[in-house]
This record gives sequence, C-alpha cells and structure tokens, in this order.
Amino acid sequence: MSDSVASSLAALDSLPVESGTLRILPLGGLGEIGMNCLIIESPEEIIVLDCGVMFSDLDHFGIEYVIPDFSYLQARADKVKAVILTHGHEDHIGSVPYLLKHGIRAPLYASTFTSLMLREKLTEFGLLQAAEIRTFKMGETFRTKDFAIRTTSVNHSIVDAAALIIDTPLGKIVHTGDFKIDPTPFFGQRLDENVFKQAGEDGVLLLLSDSTNVERHSHSHSDAEVYHSFDHLFAAAEGLTFVAMFSSNVARMAQVFDLAHKQGKKIALCGRSMEKNFELAVEAGYIKDSAGQLITLDDVEAHDRKDVLILTTGTQGEYRSALFRIAAGEHSLLDLREGDRVLMSSRQIPGNEKNVGRMINNLFKQGAEVLYEATHKIHVSGHATRPELKQMIEWTKPRFFLPIHGEYRHLVHHAKVAEETGMNEDRILVATNGDVLSIGKDHFEIVHEMEEEPRTFIDGAVMNEITKEILKDRRKLAETGGVFVLMTRDPDTGNVVAGPEVITRGIATPELEATVIEKSRELALRLVRESKRYMDKHGAADPDLAETIRVEVRRMVHSIVGKKPVVIPFILDL
Amino acid sequence: MSDSVASSLAALDSLPVESGTLRILPLGGLGEIGMNCLIIESPEEIIVLDCGVMFSDLDHFGIEYVIPDFSYLQARADKVKAVILTHGHEDHIGSVPYLLKHGIRAPLYASTFTSLMLREKLTEFGLLQAAEIRTFKMGETFRTKDFAIRTTSVNHSIVDAAALIIDTPLGKIVHTGDFKIDPTPFFGQRLDENVFKQAGEDGVLLLLSDSTNVERHSHSHSDAEVYHSFDHLFAAAEGLTFVAMFSSNVARMAQVFDLAHKQGKKIALCGRSMEKNFELAVEAGYIKDSAGQLITLDDVEAHDRKDVLILTTGTQGEYRSALFRIAAGEHSLLDLREGDRVLMSSRQIPGNEKNVGRMINNLFKQGAEVLYEATHKIHVSGHATRPELKQMIEWTKPRFFLPIHGEYRHLVHHAKVAEETGMNEDRILVATNGDVLSIGKDHFEIVHEMEEEPRTFIDGAVMNEITKEILKDRRKLAETGGVFVLMTRDPDTGNVVAGPEVITRGIATPELEATVIEKSRELALRLVRESKRYMDKHGAADPDLAETIRVEVRRMVHSIVGKKPVVIPFILDL
Repeated sequence: MSDSVASSLAALDSLPVESGTLRILPLGGLGEIGMNCLIIESPEEIIVLDCGVMFSDLDHFGIEYVIPDFSYLQARADKVKAVILTHGHEDHIGSVPYLLKHGIRAPLYASTFTSLMLREKLTEFGLLQAAEIRTFKMGETFRTKDFAIRTTSVNHSIVDAAALIIDTPLGKIVHTGDFKIDPTPFFGQRLDENVFKQAGEDGVLLLLSDSTNVERHSHSHSDAEVYHSFDHLFAAAEGLTFVAMFSSNVARMAQVFDLAHKQGKKIALCGRSMEKNFELAVEAGYIKDSAGQLITLDDVEAHDRKDVLILTTGTQGEYRSALFRIAAGEHSLLDLREGDRVLMSSRQIPGNEKNVGRMINNLFKQGAEVLYEATHKIHVSGHATRPELKQMIEWTKPRFFLPIHGEYRHLVHHAKVAEETGMNEDRILVATNGDVLSIGKDHFEIVHEMEEEPRTFIDGAVMNEITKEILKDRRKLAETGGVFVLMTRDPDTGNVVAGPEVITRGIATPELEATVIEKSRELALRLVRESKRYMDKHGAADPDLAETIRVEVRRMVHSIVGKKPVVIPFILDL
Repeated sequence: MSDSVASSLAALDSLPVESGTLRILPLGGLGEIGMNCLIIESPEEIIVLDCGVMFSDLDHFGIEYVIPDFSYLQARADKVKAVILTHGHEDHIGSVPYLLKHGIRAPLYASTFTSLMLREKLTEFGLLQAAEIRTFKMGETFRTKDFAIRTTSVNHSIVDAAALIIDTPLGKIVHTGDFKIDPTPFFGQRLDENVFKQAGEDGVLLLLSDSTNVERHSHSHSDAEVYHSFDHLFAAAEGLTFVAMFSSNVARMAQVFDLAHKQGKKIALCGRSMEKNFELAVEAGYIKDSAGQLITLDDVEAHDRKDVLILTTGTQGEYRSALFRIAAGEHSLLDLREGDRVLMSSRQIPGNEKNVGRMINNLFKQGAEVLYEATHKIHVSGHATRPELKQMIEWTKPRFFLPIHGEYRHLVHHAKVAEETGMNEDRILVATNGDVLSIGKDHFEIVHEMEEEPRTFIDGAVMNEITKEILKDRRKLAETGGVFVLMTRDPDTGNVVAGPEVITRGIATPELEATVIEKSRELALRLVRESKRYMDKHGAADPDLAETIRVEVRRMVHSIVGKKPVVIPFILDL
C-alpha cells in the first residue's frame, strides 16, 4: 500500500465513523470510467458495492490494469459484512480476486448471471474455494445487522444487472449500478420504475447514480434498433459477416442466434472468452437450442460465406485478439475476402481509439468492409443519458445526491442535472476516489481527502502489484535508455584491474552510441585516477566514486545525445 | 535508412522512370493523418509536394514525432528541382529541416504566410541559410523543365493555403492540398471553383485530393459560425474566457481580436508559439492595430476578469503546455476561478483523447467550465466533407484518381465517393506510403511496393533519428525492466575474483526483487563453476559464459516474476 494512503489511513484511525452517521468512501469509479468500488460504513459494519478493474493506458510499461487500493478494507477486514456486485462487467467484478487476496472474506452477493461470470473469474485465479458466492434473484432482499439490501432489475449492456435500494439506520440509499431505461430490451422487462418511485415516496436519503453518458442529451437507443439493423445486414450479406462485440453481452449474442435461426444462417464463435460466455449464456438459459446454428471455425469453409456469421472478440484492437489477428491476416482458420463485412458492435473504450483505428484500417486492407456505430446503428450504449438520469432523480427525490461512475467532468455535469430538477446545490457532492464522506439525516460532507488516489497497478504478465518506484524506473529506461559502466578495482591500491567497460541500451544511433561508449570509458578512467588522491589521503577507496561516475557520465552523455539516460556504474572491489 | 527501404531503393534503381510516364511516390500521408509528402518524378526531374511530420504515440519511448524516410530523395538529390509547400501546418512543413539535412537543396516554394512559418522553423533549426525560400502569390505559376505549377487559393484552418494545378508532359495533375469549401471564410474569398472547373474542361490526367473528412456526410461548417458562437460566449462571460486553439490558426486569432475590439475586451496571449504566430499574423497583415486590446499575462489581474480573453495553446493536453499547467494549477500567472470558461476551439488529434480528457477533467477540478466542439459550435474542421469531395471530383473530371491525406479506411471511402461520381473503378488507386505508382496517358498502376513503410522516428529531446533497434531496446526495458549481472574473472583459473553482483531496475516489488537478486547471484556462481569444466578441457575461459548466464538468469527470473526481463551479464577478465 502506498505511503500516502497509509498516512491517510492513519488519519482515518483517529477519525472513526460517528454514531448517527454513515461513511461513504468511494475507492474507484469517481474520477474515471472503470474500477467501480464504493464503501458504505456504519460504526459497526462495512458493505462494499462493486469491485472492478480499469484497463490501463500504461500497458507499454507492462501495466495491464488498475485496481482500487484495498488497504483501507484490509485494515478493517472483520468489519466487512457483504460485497455486492451489481453486474458481471470487468469494471464491476474484475478486482474481486485481489479483494480476496487482501483477506476480505465477506460473502459475495451477485445475480444469477453475475454469479456465473464471478465463478469463472475466481476459478481462473484459483480462488473459488476461498470465496462464498451468494446468488440472489432480482427483487430479493438480503440483510446484515445494519443494512437491508433490496435488489431490482435494470437495463444494461449485460443481462441480470441490478440496482440496489439499501435500508440503513439513517434511511434509504439508492444505488443505480450501471443502468439505462430501455422500453424494448431483448431480454426481460424494462426496469421497474415503480420500485424507484416507491422508494421516492418512502423517502430516499441518498442517491448514487451512473454518470457515464451524462454528456448525451437524447434518450438512449434500444437493443431493438440493433436487432433490426442486424436483420437487414445479415440478410444482405454477400460474404462472411463478422460481429465484433464484448463477449459478456449475451443479449446481443442471443439476438444474433435468434436472427441466424430466422434466416437459416450458421454461427461460428471466435475467441476464448466468446466461447466461454456462450457456454454461460446457455447454462443460464439465455440461448436455447443453438445446435442447428453453431458450427466450428474449421467448418466455415464448408459453407457458403454469405450464410455464415462469426461472433468475435477484439473490439478494442487488443494485441493478438481474434479480430486483431484476422486484421493482420494472421489467423490460422479465417481470412478476409472481398465482400466480407465486419460489424463493430461495441463502443471504443477511451484510450483505445488509436489501436482500434489501426485494426479497422488493417481490416480494410484485407479487403473487408467495416461498419461502425458512427455509420450504422449496430451498437447502442448501456448507459442512461441526460433525460433518463433526470428521470431517475425525479423518481427517487433524494435528500442528498452523489454522482458516481464517471470522469470528473461527468460528475460535474450530472450534479448540474440534479440542480435542474430543483435540488439545492448544498445537497449535492462532487467527490472523487479517496474522499471520505460523512452522511447524517441532515448533513452530507467530505470530512477527509486522501493525498493521493488509492489505486494499485497490476502487471499483466504477473498479476502482481507494481509500485510507483518500479513504474518510475521503467519510465526512465523507456524514455532515455541506459548506460552501464563497470570496472573492477583493487581496494588496496585503488587501481582499476579490469575495465572500465561500457554497455548501452536504447541510447541513440550506432554512431552516437560508439562515441558515448568511448567517452564514457575515458571519463570513468579519469575519475578513477582522480579518486586515487582520496586513496592517498584517507588510505581507503573513495566510497563516492560510483555516484561521481554516475553523475559525470550522465552529464557527459547529455552533452552528446541531448538527453540524460539512466546511468548505472558497477564498481567491483577485488 | 532502414534495410527494407534500402533493398527497395536497390530494386528501384533497376526500375527507372520510363519515358512517356511519370512516377508518383507517396512518402507520407497515405495511410495516416499527418507527415504529408508526395513525389512526382519524370525521367529527368523530381518535385516534392509537402514535407510534414506526424506526432508520435510513442512519446513514452522518447519519440516525439515521425518523418518520411528521405533516403529515396537523398539518393537522387540532384534530380529534385522543387519542394512545394501547400500551407504552413506542421504536417506539411514540419520535416523540411530533415529534408535539408539529407542534402536536398532545391528551392522551397511557399505562399506568403507559409513562408513566414517556414522561416521560423528553419531559424529554430539553424538552417535558414541552407534554404532558398521562394514565396509565391496565389495564382502565380512557377516552372521547372518538365513541370509548370500553378497555385490557387483554398479554404483551410490556416490562412494562405494553396492547391496546385501542375502541367506535366502527360497532362494536368491537380493536388488539392488540405482544403474545404467555405462560402463565408473570415479571410479572403472562397476557393475559386472556376480554376478547378477550367482545369476539368482542359482535361485533368490525375486528381490528388484530401481524404481526411470523407467519413463526414454533411457539408463542412463555416468559420462564420464560430465567429457567432464566440460573439455570444464572450458577451455572456462572467469570468476569464480562455480560447484554446492551434496557434497557427491566425484567422481564428483575428476573429477573437475583431470581437474583442467590438466588445471592448482585452486579450492576453499564453504560450510561446501563440506569441510567435501572433507576430507573424501582424507581420503578414492579418491582425491590425491590436494595441488597444493586447495586454500581458501580468496585467490580467488588473482587469475585471469578464473583460479578459486569453488565447492559449495546449489543446492536445501536451505535457507542460500553457493550458496543461493552468489545468494542474501550476501556472505562475494564471489561476482558474468559479465562472471562468475554457473554450476548446480545436479538434483532438487521434491518440490524444486520453490526455485531453485528463486535462479537461483537471480544468473542471480547478473550478472552470469547459466547452468543447461536441457541445458548442466553437470549432469547425478545415477539411472538406463527402459532398465537397464529390464536388471537387465533378469539377476536375480527372482521368485517374488517387485519394491522399488519410488513414487507409479514409482512402477506401474516398475511392468509393469517386465511383459514385461515375468514375470507373480501374481508374482509381488506393495506395499507401512507399507504393511506387506509374502513370501514363492510358495507365495508372502500382509497379513496386516497399516491404516496409518508409518512415523515421525522431527523438524529441535530440531531434535525432531513432532506429528500430533503439526503439526495441527501450520497449523491452519499459515492459519488463532489467537485470544486470556482473563479475570479474581470472582468465587463467576461471575463478571469479569479484562478484557476482546483481542490480535490477523496474522488475517487481521489493520483496520479489530481493529474491531475484539472490537467486541470480547463486545461479551465476553455479554457471561460472560449471564453466570451469570448459576451462579444464580447453585451457581457456568459456567464451559463451556470458550468453549462458543471460539465458539462464532470464529463464529463472521468469519463473519468479512471470515475465522475461532484459538480462545483461558483464564478465570482466583480469
């Protein structure tokens, strides 16, 4: 755990949750899209709402994703009575394994499909045994001593997504999870507004609501529109039709199977997670009797290309993903031909634009036509837009409001939406991860701010935490490369008995590098000779020689190549 | 110059430009937005159209931008008779200094304002003396032996932008440069469609046209709309109004001065390039008698905030740019307060979304309101959209068509637009950088493809070329960190007399790193001992010991931290 959080934790020990109040502590999702995690704490209990990851834009430093810093919970492990997961997306369940690694053993509450996704994830991490998953049906209520959590279904880009209405000693807290209001969803009924209205009638102390799409002004589009677009596009196919999508969106998957059945097309699944989530969708009963449609990738060639639909992952241009390899012409079983079409049926996660753009260009180079959200209605967002967000506030009529799930500007805009509904400014807080909020019947305020955002970097290959120091080293080496100067010294005489030898990595052009190596050797030699004066004076080898060499060589290289690299001197004494 | 290009160059030596044909060789801008550079070559002459840079998304590897590989031109330096720059944007003039460095001494033709920008750039590089800038007035024609280049004004997001109508031995080639059709530009008249129509009447062999905005279907918006938005927003200001924009957009700069004069507001310039380009705008006569409006940043406090407009750079969230520092609350002279507004009056260059997003969030945190293109009409693109592109093709009625200036998908879409105008598919080529095109009165085809895109990475700090090898080193160090194993050996006995010592950089957590260091020492020691067998057998130290240590340590570290770092063994012999 990073020092700053530690010091904040210390501060928090002297800042207990006062009786008659609750503490709200967002660990993630307030200040970014992703790694959603929020704590509600009474004097005696803690419940955790969602526990997600965020994909990192530092992947070139080996950092695959970011998770919340769980040190606050670790220090209060026994107090945690429930971890509630509103739905199965990575940014809501992705860091549960790390929560377990930090010794939290509270039951994990999740809806049917969310439980299946969670089961897969924990199995993958070899942590299934360490976890207690309690599956709830929508509408069910479960209790801890201080909290009664009622679940209710909402529309989202994954099935079985829940909102929560939490009875606390101070009143009701409504947590929307990720939601939108879809009058014509492909599965299940539209979200039950009466549940929220009723809560509003009974009185809501605090509303926590999804801010992701607050910058969109028109009502969100319905899954039904995608269904119709697919219907036309599949029917008009002249070659293979690739549907690139998030594999967790089983409702969309089911739409494709439904249309394939209707149009007599075959479907092949591409990508491990697509196959996995298909199995889960079947297990959960969302996809039935697919036997007639499903074929393997090897069978594709055996069919007329226009009669084959391929569900594939890789919408974010992820390196080596199925679609990435197809675009690069490196997929063992699938190649693209004139007339093939790729439907990008997903959003681009901010930061991925460049990779996705590159992949789309490569798909065109392979001869395929690529359709995307901008040009065709083949994807709809799973998040409520401004009018829906306003609706939610008007339904629940909360006393206090905290916008969640968004970058800072989204939270600010969402706060404005609340004001437009007539809420008084001083009943609305815009807070970010690490802010400690205190709420009572008549107050809602930030009582403490952590100096630094509580977050932890995860090394992709290692699934291990990376400290800021490691990142700093990698950054420096990446930006400038390194110069390594080594020599062996006779500590008695101070003479160099071997070396100096100089090796460089990633510094500059071969010509410049040659100069750097030569000059570094000369400089090191001179400094060693000079250090002998110290020898003569003190009768011992200069302890600062290495540091002197580091500084001097660094300065000298800077004068040659114009930047200061990492310089590591090694002086071995015989 | 990279091997692949070298080999292609070799191939090209045996592939001369046949008489009765011209060679078209795009070195940049076909396959990406940026680094525009295209060669037209007759058997005896070469002319170069534009010479730009592209900002790199590899800046974390110290790579600031990318330029075309000029080795083809370097090998034919005497043949180059003219370098023509259509306007002053970085992606059109940015790599002229590197062209000069490669020994090209042909005259640089540029319009009045473009010449000024070019003068600044060459001065900055200390290359002004090495260059011969020939300034042309719009409508002027200049000649080489084989080519007569007529210039004509087009609308774009920078003043004094030109299109070219080039008379060649085979017929007319029309190069649009970057353009749009703005019926109400702030400066100058709308582009003269008659020039293009006339060329069409006389007969155009080849059209080269800007593809940037081909994915937009409605006619581009006019500068006039921005003027009106600014008018309202400035008048309604309650605090400071920041206008964040590209400093080269002097027309927009002039709009702001015009409105400031009208509304009696003051203007402060923020950012070095903003000040520099303001001077150029005054020198070129685009901004007159600004004395009444202009104040310095120190004077801002002396005025009522609502009466002050601040023109600032940093629209791309560039690290340490003026706006970046303001957003971080680290600007020495400017702070943000409630009521201040930031107008993001520019596009986001793809790949910068994340940085720009972060900066906007920080501006909100500082208390300012941020308006952007999505929500307010405070920026218009300088590029023609689909209907305008169609128009250009219909005006010029070219025999052959080559879409330029765009990512691959833009080129493909632009080719489709040409087909929609009735052009026959076989008269349209979609080509990318490095493709060698041959055009004659009756043919237009790709005769050679370079194995690899001809491009060169430029190190930001050094303004020096970075080879793929350097990049590879930096990449590896960045992703995994490094392990350095060193020891001193007595070559006669093979005994280690000092070390092994192990140092790591950026590997893993302190705990893991300690293990890595310890195990690496043990392993190195063991391998040295084993190498003594070689010693006994051959009577000489094992020459492969270092490589053995590298491989083994790498494997061992992988088993501990889950990834293979850069391992550099140093063995010094006494």
